[in-house]
Amino acid sequence: MDDRPIGVFDSGVGGLTVVKEIIRQLPQEDVVYFGDTAHLPYGPKSSQTIKRLVRDNIRFLLKKKVKAIILACHTASAFTLEEIREENPIPIIGVIRPGAEEALRLTKNKRIGIIGTYGTIKSRAYSKELKRLEPGAFVIEKPCPLFVPLAEEGWIKKEATKLIVREYLEPLKEEEIDTLILGCTHYPLLKEEIAQVMGEVYLIDSARATVERLKRILEEKDLLAREGVPRHSFFVSDAPERFARLGKIFLGKEIGKVKRI
Amino acid sequence: MDDRPIGVFDSGVGGLTVVKEIIRQLPQEDVVYFGDTAHLPYGPKSSQTIKRLVRDNIRFLLKKKVKAIILACHTASAFTLEEIREENPIPIIGVIRPGAEEALRLTKNKRIGIIGTYGTIKSRAYSKELKRLEPGAFVIEKPCPLFVPLAEEGWIKKEATKLIVREYLEPLKEEEIDTLILGCTHYPLLKEEIAQVMGEVYLIDSARATVERLKRILEEKDLLAREGVPRHSFFVSDAPERFARLGKIFLGKEIGKVKRI
Repeated sequence: MDDRPIGVFDSGVGGLTVVKEIIRQLPQEDVVYFGDTAHLPYGPKSSQTIKRLVRDNIRFLLKKKVKAIILACHTASAFTLEEIREENPIPIIGVIRPGAEEALRLTKNKRIGIIGTYGTIKSRAYSKELKRLEPGAFVIEKPCPLFVPLAEEGWIKKEATKLIVREYLEPLKEEEIDTLILGCTHYPLLKEEIAQVMGEVYLIDSARATVERLKRILEEKDLLAREGVPRHSFFVSDAPERFARLGKIFLGKEIGKVKRI
Repeated sequence: MDDRPIGVFDSGVGGLTVVKEIIRQLPQEDVVYFGDTAHLPYGPKSSQTIKRLVRDNIRFLLKKKVKAIILACHTASAFTLEEIREENPIPIIGVIRPGAEEALRLTKNKRIGIIGTYGTIKSRAYSKELKRLEPGAFVIEKPCPLFVPLAEEGWIKKEATKLIVREYLEPLKEEEIDTLILGCTHYPLLKEEIAQVMGEVYLIDSARATVERLKRILEEKDLLAREGVPRHSFFVSDAPERFARLGKIFLGKEIGKVKRI
């Protein structure tokens, strides 16, 4: 047993879909969240800058004595996971591999779609991972840049959102994929609208897949916390009010005090 | 006469609506544009950081021997205009005052609406300027954060865009404003959709108003360029390909080579 908290890092609020999954799958665990809101978005930054920022942020989480860290930022996962792992003794979990593995476990026709921000799609992180694990897979990628602002506005069940989801996803449907990876931590908020357009297609929620992996690791290493009321702490590098406001949309409840560091 | 170029600064591509107006109103003028794409968005940054960034960027434009500078970024205009003016001998023009003045010139019932990003609305820059010039004005402000990503996706005449415009603007209509300031350099791209929703309301295009002021200043100071084929140069601090792609949407034509500095 280990009562130390789980660290979650993201550039903004998106990683809160990961926190929501931790609350669902690992309700007894404490969480320390850090959102590097002063430097978002990470997508357009150089890999050198991203590495420096992630390293700084990991240091902050380590000071909070976390027992494991989820890099909930797709850009950070794509560019820094290996190095951060080498430099730190605790488990570090990215969001890309768990989603890619679950997609390959579920697909029957090996035709897999990936949606994400321009940055994530341009990095080709998911498609490289899928091809590495299954060279015979057919992979099609599509950036959906309006999904993040729609999620952040909380415009979930609106007609405009449905139209936008249809416009982005129709071309993927025509490719007869049977599995679609939601390659951005914001996208689970639009899951229902995406499911309506895609029909009989497996939707891979990378937040859920990542926390499933975390749970397995904590079990294997005997690091699960004891039963009790969990504490969730939220830190950001800028604009805590905005984070708190958006956090309510992402977590589905008030997130309480957000500290600026 | 003065053939030196006009400098235009913005954090991203939005300032290209100002360049488009320069091409329309001052077709003989050379332009040097700098987009600080490595540091966008400016909105959530502290005023200290914004001042440092703007100062650095102005220095770059001065090296290009510009005869006047437009701060096409609303955040930069709100926070740094006074200082940049004091530090530099050439005319420095912000985007806020020209729009506010034009609104007051046109309004009959003195009920004025302002739309912009969260950052611009939160700064209250327009409403402070309007109240300063006309203490009796009724001012209502509304952030429309989805307009920037819609413009950047080039989703101009789509049904989803019309729905979003209606949703944001209906509350302003109910306030019986007769003048609406488009308080973001991206918004002129959605002018037609905004006009459809707002009906008989003056739309103040801050890009147009700003270039009208620039023209007056160049005329007064005898700084207009001679007739000739103008040169437009574009510089960014990151992601030149993205800038070139979006630039085509904003300028309505290919913008040619974009240099990263």
